Amino acid sequence: MADDLDALLTDSKRASRALGVAPAGQRHEAIRAIATAIERATDRILAANAEDLERGRESGLAEGMLDRLLLDERRIAGLAAAARALAELPDPIGEVLRERTLPNGLELTEVRVPFGVVGVIYEARPNVTVDLACIGLGSGNAVVLRGGSAAERTNAALVEAIQDAVEGEGLPREVVQTIDRFGRDGAGRLMRARGLIDLLVPRGSAALIDRVVTESTVPVIETGAGVVHAFVDRAADLPMALDIVLNAKTQRTSVCNALETLLVHRDIAETAVPTIAVALQQAGVTIHADGALPGVDAAAPLGDGGWATEHLSMDVAIGVVDDLDAAIEHVNAFGTHHTDTIITDDEDAAARFLAEVDSAVVMHNASTRFTDGGEFGFGAEVGISTQKAHARGPMGLPELTSTKWIVRGTGQVRA
Amino acid sequence: MADDLDALLTDSKRASRALGVAPAGQRHEAIRAIATAIERATDRILAANAEDLERGRESGLAEGMLDRLLLDERRIAGLAAAARALAELPDPIGEVLRERTLPNGLELTEVRVPFGVVGVIYEARPNVTVDLACIGLGSGNAVVLRGGSAAERTNAALVEAIQDAVEGEGLPREVVQTIDRFGRDGAGRLMRARGLIDLLVPRGSAALIDRVVTESTVPVIETGAGVVHAFVDRAADLPMALDIVLNAKTQRTSVCNALETLLVHRDIAETAVPTIAVALQQAGVTIHADGALPGVDAAAPLGDGGWATEHLSMDVAIGVVDDLDAAIEHVNAFGTHHTDTIITDDEDAAARFLAEVDSAVVMHNASTRFTDGGEFGFGAEVGISTQKAHARGPMGLPELTSTKWIVRGTGQVRA
Repeated sequence: MADDLDALLTDSKRASRALGVAPAGQRHEAIRAIATAIERATDRILAANAEDLERGRESGLAEGMLDRLLLDERRIAGLAAAARALAELPDPIGEVLRERTLPNGLELTEVRVPFGVVGVIYEARPNVTVDLACIGLGSGNAVVLRGGSAAERTNAALVEAIQDAVEGEGLPREVVQTIDRFGRDGAGRLMRARGLIDLLVPRGSAALIDRVVTESTVPVIETGAGVVHAFVDRAADLPMALDIVLNAKTQRTSVCNALETLLVHRDIAETAVPTIAVALQQAGVTIHADGALPGVDAAAPLGDGGWATEHLSMDVAIGVVDDLDAAIEHVNAFGTHHTDTIITDDEDAAARFLAEVDSAVVMHNASTRFTDGGEFGFGAEVGISTQKAHARGPMGLPELTSTKWIVRGTGQVRA
Repeated sequence: MADDLDALLTDSKRASRALGVAPAGQRHEAIRAIATAIERATDRILAANAEDLERGRESGLAEGMLDRLLLDERRIAGLAAAARALAELPDPIGEVLRERTLPNGLELTEVRVPFGVVGVIYEARPNVTVDLACIGLGSGNAVVLRGGSAAERTNAALVEAIQDAVEGEGLPREVVQTIDRFGRDGAGRLMRARGLIDLLVPRGSAALIDRVVTESTVPVIETGAGVVHAFVDRAADLPMALDIVLNAKTQRTSVCNALETLLVHRDIAETAVPTIAVALQQAGVTIHADGALPGVDAAAPLGDGGWATEHLSMDVAIGVVDDLDAAIEHVNAFGTHHTDTIITDDEDAAARFLAEVDSAVVMHNASTRFTDGGEFGFGAEVGISTQKAHARGPMGLPELTSTKWIVRGTGQVRA
């Protein structure tokens, strides 16, 4: 099995070389062919999915996991439509980022190039398999997918259809490969495949991401974890604050851009906290605090992680802070540098919050739920980077590219 | 000691927040103040350097290391001049990279921001200490420097002068700190300081870089190792090839952009190999091969690493390849993705080489010695990245920055 995986990764690397010089038109045709292929293979894919679902139920997979694992005709049609839309996006490859001519006549051009082979580790979400195959083609990268044993049969059926489609467009089928069959060991070896994997993106639980960051010797983009804050400043428009907080907390709770902590300026806490808390409670949200809150009876204690808890559920922590400085300090200390918003009519306070909060996305008078590749108009999203190196925030096609300096001379040598 | 290092890194993080919002003018003044400070402290710095040199001689440090460790008045004046030049470079911070207004009225702006705290691990090169302090200020980053125990006293004297200068300009002195006194353990803990170190750059030996890449849980930029190739195509201008190969191999040998492997197209090998080989031998270069070479008597065997050997000395490996495809395959298989050049008058061959060789810098008819931040006009260089994530090739000030999305709304919530 060991040799199999090495051979597989070597095939990916070889395939990436061919893909890297394939014209955008061919890559876009391959994406469209994938859309058609998964539609045509719907029956086979759903049969495989039914097997995965049955195994999942037998092994006691949680309902939420089973729902994410589930494919049906409507979901497959949605994946195909998303693929076709992605094929319309501008091609990032070859874009000229910087150009200069040196005094000695050397012409320097910095252009966007694909990474080569991008590995992605995720869990039981077969829709991601199709997305990533298409994003890979859109950015000129071969992808090696580790989608989790719970979705192994579904992913295998999808990847087979994808590979056939890609091959039909004259590209090597190995530009998209799955390593689910290698189990947990496969993920670990992906993390150490220096020279074969150019970038590794973990998507999923904090535990998964921690493991990848700790074990990986290939460059990693850390994604996802979102201890997201809203700060209701003393100069906030209270109805606006209420709207934004309710939306950020309740519109969808299991996502990384959902609100986890509400901070309220002490000067308005007596009115703002009860107003917002009651509305949240009426919406079914449990309020957590580390002590008494104005007008809130019996707040629950903070989660196990204290102020750094990511609930991903109908729970929110509320804290009262002395001033803007304390709010900024709190966010930087306990947040995950994902998304944080200030609600205020004070432009100076907003400017300071936007400058001093050290997060991928900082907002003024907007819901944190907007941190999303689709909402940002990226068309496709690989994940949301919470690290500062390479890419920060939602990652679309350009974020899956590297660069290269091309130097053209006429025999120049260095003096 | 453990608590000391944690406290030191926490101080760096706090200082980075102040530096991150300091205006460019103040940061540039601080760089100029550093230039003046190290000039004024020359006596104290040279005294500390003399102690390091004596300890180095006693412990049997190699002559090359001792030379890199040595400071004198001329070198200090050079460092001050370089610092003053760096203070004239454009400020990358706040640069707007992308802007868009969404249909719902949200205004998105992507701006350059500092990383925060950048750690650098290097070996016995006190000049790098001054460079990095200034590059940090120029890019808005606090730096934590691990410059090696051999240079501990020199670095301490330099950092003291630097900190006084920075403080004199109203910035926290902790924006530049050294952890040499924590020894090897300090480097290891830097690698695992998630949340405190935003980026780690190892500079130095392949062994050091390997250790950092393997052990680090913070984002790393891999730098340096250069198994650099020149391919003399069948359509090469032979005198030009000779010039470039001689320059790339012999102009300076201990650097990562020096030539290590010369590949020659079989169609011209009978004339090109002897011509170039004789010139290299006359220049004092030892030729290595894995068999007989046309017109070369008694080539030495390849190094221990075979075709992947980085000699960093007056040694070169020469190979004959069947064609352009074989050359590209050889470079991608055995190179370190640093810099590779093709010498040819055939534009099609050049275009293929530039597109298909997977290196940070690819060249046509130019010496590989030009891969350098100074030569590229960057003004300052942190190192040369050989990885694809974040930065590739010479790293100047913009490469030491991250980005941030600023979202300005008027109460927008997600539907």
